[in-house]
Amino acid sequence: MNKPTVLLILLFTTISYYAVAQQSLWNNSQLVSPQINNDNSVTFRVEAPGAREVKIIGDWLPSAGQGSGSVTMKLDEKGIWSYTTTPLASDLYSYLFVIDGIKTNDPNNVYQIRDVASIFNVFIVKGGKGDLYSVNDVPHGTVSRRWYNSPSLSKERRITIYTPAGYENSKEKFPVLYLLHGMGGDEEAWIALGRTAQILDNLIAQGKARPMIVVMSNGNASQQAAPGEASTGMHKPNMMLPNTMDGTFETSFPDIISFVEQNYRVISEKKGRAIAGLSMGGFHSLHISRFYPNTFDHVGLFSAAIMPDQQVKSKVYDKFDETLSQQQKNGYKIYWIGIGKTDFLYQANADFRKKLDSIGMKYTYLETEGGHTWTNWRTYLSEFSQLIFK
Amino acid sequence: MNKPTVLLILLFTTISYYAVAQQSLWNNSQLVSPQINNDNSVTFRVEAPGAREVKIIGDWLPSAGQGSGSVTMKLDEKGIWSYTTTPLASDLYSYLFVIDGIKTNDPNNVYQIRDVASIFNVFIVKGGKGDLYSVNDVPHGTVSRRWYNSPSLSKERRITIYTPAGYENSKEKFPVLYLLHGMGGDEEAWIALGRTAQILDNLIAQGKARPMIVVMSNGNASQQAAPGEASTGMHKPNMMLPNTMDGTFETSFPDIISFVEQNYRVISEKKGRAIAGLSMGGFHSLHISRFYPNTFDHVGLFSAAIMPDQQVKSKVYDKFDETLSQQQKNGYKIYWIGIGKTDFLYQANADFRKKLDSIGMKYTYLETEGGHTWTNWRTYLSEFSQLIFK
Repeated sequence: MNKPTVLLILLFTTISYYAVAQQSLWNNSQLVSPQINNDNSVTFRVEAPGAREVKIIGDWLPSAGQGSGSVTMKLDEKGIWSYTTTPLASDLYSYLFVIDGIKTNDPNNVYQIRDVASIFNVFIVKGGKGDLYSVNDVPHGTVSRRWYNSPSLSKERRITIYTPAGYENSKEKFPVLYLLHGMGGDEEAWIALGRTAQILDNLIAQGKARPMIVVMSNGNASQQAAPGEASTGMHKPNMMLPNTMDGTFETSFPDIISFVEQNYRVISEKKGRAIAGLSMGGFHSLHISRFYPNTFDHVGLFSAAIMPDQQVKSKVYDKFDETLSQQQKNGYKIYWIGIGKTDFLYQANADFRKKLDSIGMKYTYLETEGGHTWTNWRTYLSEFSQLIFK
Repeated sequence: MNKPTVLLILLFTTISYYAVAQQSLWNNSQLVSPQINNDNSVTFRVEAPGAREVKIIGDWLPSAGQGSGSVTMKLDEKGIWSYTTTPLASDLYSYLFVIDGIKTNDPNNVYQIRDVASIFNVFIVKGGKGDLYSVNDVPHGTVSRRWYNSPSLSKERRITIYTPAGYENSKEKFPVLYLLHGMGGDEEAWIALGRTAQILDNLIAQGKARPMIVVMSNGNASQQAAPGEASTGMHKPNMMLPNTMDGTFETSFPDIISFVEQNYRVISEKKGRAIAGLSMGGFHSLHISRFYPNTFDHVGLFSAAIMPDQQVKSKVYDKFDETLSQQQKNGYKIYWIGIGKTDFLYQANADFRKKLDSIGMKYTYLETEGGHTWTNWRTYLSEFSQLIFK
């Protein structure tokens, strides 16, 4: 062999050498997991010859209560544990392995998403809803992580902004959807778990959603940014943050609108603004849209954490009925409520709908199977984004 | 308890319930791992009461060859395995656990980075180099994932672009560093593994680097985007891609420059352009800067995969000496070479330096400890970015 060939081989094999023997930077296993089969069943595999028991936890598996069930995988003579599902409906799914009682990510699947303090593997089954969550050959928007100044919170804060394909080379003004996360989430939640960029790219390309800017802010007033993205360092994410549902974030919201309207070509009017959020973000959307009752023509409450007779003191929660009624009088185009049948917030949402009915405030309602899950929130975003700005 | 209090408790506890019993979406463990101690030693912990042996693989541990060594952790009576390092020099480190022979990420550390087809945990020890890789209270630039059209490759392609703090609200024109990844990498490599945004934010804030735009393209001509970010789906990342070092990417490079210069406020002259890359990206930088010999005033070869007497046929590799000499005659400000003492490309780089010496082509040279590692590449970026555009 000549010298350059030897060097090229070295370049490949040294890298492989790292993998097996040393730095574990690369994964050389030939195992495929997950494998989506032609009938939309899915096969999982993991090499664990010495393990006593390997289970898979997956959000499609039946369980006693809410959430994910688990099933035991089978060991073959080569030390590979495997499991094949029944055919699955098209969607995005999440799972983990449990090897001898220890939760483990699938070492052959690099597609992982953090949800608060846990990381799980994901895969997509195509042919339906899952297509909306996939990257397809369509024009792609831009996703930017920026920092804005919030005078109300005296902080520089991180924000994720999706601009639709063509934004940069147009002179058009675009409408803006402000999209808020739930408790324990942050400005990464909707873009990672929510597949916002894929959903919007696809719906816009299909002509089903109007090209819009989506602004994903951080709703934890005490935080500057997602865990690891602020000077507080790579700390363990914490679900229980101060000042999450006490009016602080809500009253700082005009800082975000003002940043967006000063920095992007947007329709700076009620008709060009939507606000929606999941769980705590639904709570925030409810209160922000009511407290600033002439700001949003489109409101989306996704499994909203509605707290009847809110006891926390804040000017935001005072005069609830008055401001809601003011919002009603000012008019709006879409007031949208989505909730899963087994969501622990189902009753609170039913009560809230009764209140709306009693004052004759119109809303669009979607009731889905399942509970307080990202599966539902991706569906709600897909539905809501097709209705607004039309 | 009143009704709202009950609901708020439900909101917290239902979520906790998921964690333990069901959906594993949240990690409720009180364990802290890694824990950076006051003397810069680091303690790792993992709960695995039934395990027979738990090891940690880390890139600071001594090993027989290049790469990372491993060490066995100790089990306590509560089923927690732990290990404490000696005090570590300030840097960013990576590690994994091996539980009964199975490689596992640290379930208590959500900070993970993908390198080609493996995911490993990371942590930062501060007080030196590690400070440069940390998010500090300084003005932050914007990181955007965009798509550009490459007529030469007949593809829409994804690209990562860092614009320095203040870019959006200034009228100034900025210089551009084109920063290229290695084999198996993509447009996510430098921003994730390279900590480019943190390094530039910090060096610019300290007045040590000039505010610049950093363009991180995908150097695999056959790819549109990083794994999972193109319509090829969530496939297993592959090290062995076609058309990586055959002139295809190099001759498509003007598409990237032209996209950047049409879409950003930049200094569209040689003095405002730098190109640098690691390993394969160093190879690309060497050839692109030579093949377009009047385009870049600053060139950085980081552990460059220099292939003497390149055998692959491409007009890019023809007339090597002539174009190198032309680049020399045209003049440049910085030609920078960095390599680790134990890098398998050390000799190829030494030979290349001899060639440069023989024709009197000036360069700046940095030789570091260690081999073909991100630890070195982060150092090289930190050094190189302080020298350019001055």
